[in-house]
Amino acid sequence: MTTFSVKTSGTVATTDITESVIQAVADNDIQDGAALIYCPHTTAGIFINEGADPDVVIDVEAFMKELVPRNRPYRHAEGNSPAHISSILTGNSAMVPISGGKLMLGRWQHVFLAEFDGPRNRQVYVQLLRS
Amino acid sequence: MTTFSVKTSGTVATTDITESVIQAVADNDIQDGAALIYCPHTTAGIFINEGADPDVVIDVEAFMKELVPRNRPYRHAEGNSPAHISSILTGNSAMVPISGGKLMLGRWQHVFLAEFDGPRNRQVYVQLLRS
Amino acid sequence: MTTFSVKTSGTVATTDITESVIQAVADNDIQDGAALIYCPHTTAGIFINEGADPDVVIDVEAFMKELVPRNRPYRHAEGNSPAHISSILTGNSAMVPISGGKLMLGRWQHVFLAEFDGPRNRQVYVQLLRS
Repeated sequence: MTTFSVKTSGTVATTDITESVIQAVADNDIQDGAALIYCPHTTAGIFINEGADPDVVIDVEAFMKELVPRNRPYRHAEGNSPAHISSILTGNSAMVPISGGKLMLGRWQHVFLAEFDGPRNRQVYVQLLRS
Repeated sequence: MTTFSVKTSGTVATTDITESVIQAVADNDIQDGAALIYCPHTTAGIFINEGADPDVVIDVEAFMKELVPRNRPYRHAEGNSPAHISSILTGNSAMVPISGGKLMLGRWQHVFLAEFDGPRNRQVYVQLLRS
Repeated sequence: MTTFSVKTSGTVATTDITESVIQAVADNDIQDGAALIYCPHTTAGIFINEGADPDVVIDVEAFMKELVPRNRPYRHAEGNSPAHISSILTGNSAMVPISGGKLMLGRWQHVFLAEFDGPRNRQVYVQLLRS
């Protein structure tokens, strides 16, 4: 299993981690299978979406902040329930097939770490599974 | 890895792809493991839910259109940010266990491709992973 | 594949299933790979989030009930469309890496079955995949 760190840049902030995931696949001798990209935190998530136009993830961030507002009444005393809920909605992991030694991301797809309670140092695990 | 195409039928439209997934498992000699069903696009998703009553996915489509409205102010100039956001909320892949050579979908479960920016021709990948 | 049952306690109710998942890993001789935790139902989901403070999942439940209200007009005659939609939003499965024989949940992460149309008896599958 490969582990790498990500320093996130804001309360709600998205980091493109595609290169680190591709490197984890390249560092291992795997031809066919899949990569599990896993976030071991409870207030951050992982998602796959467009990486070409940075405005896409800015729209995603704005939408999530409005969908899960800070100012609802929450019971959890730490005050970061919106971050917990947001990470459940995006999910905390993603799977990508590997075929012929290559990570099969679609043409526009990048892998993102979605920070919802930052800025913080976060860990990401990449585990490779064989066909 | 198996690849198949889906021609979607509307802007927001759900296609039942269960038979193609079952066929991909049947075409391979796998007894125990899991199937990864993967959508390589950024404005469509994959989800698993009820396939018996077609009204269920109609309710899902109506809900998603209301949850992620077209008329919010978005920055992404292509105008399809709601489709990008919707695909993040449903997710762009699903995993189903395989046991005794059989895809272990529950009694009412079907696998769906969720189109959010169609109609288009879409690709779906099915990668089998062994226990 | 391991199967276990969960008796859920309310219409919308969250059950911590972490111990059963850890047991399924311990019962099998697997060193490196991942666990797929799978819900074969269409009105319940699986998610990973904080298990230390029980108020976190109470906030999640309250949020989901408000996000997917019972009183919208739905077509599905059974009246449980909100439960179908909620299970799509949380997802019906989760993946967790296994490394050195250990399930690699983060410090605060627990695995939860999210009931959206209970109380009922539910099944959960755990399938182990090898690196």
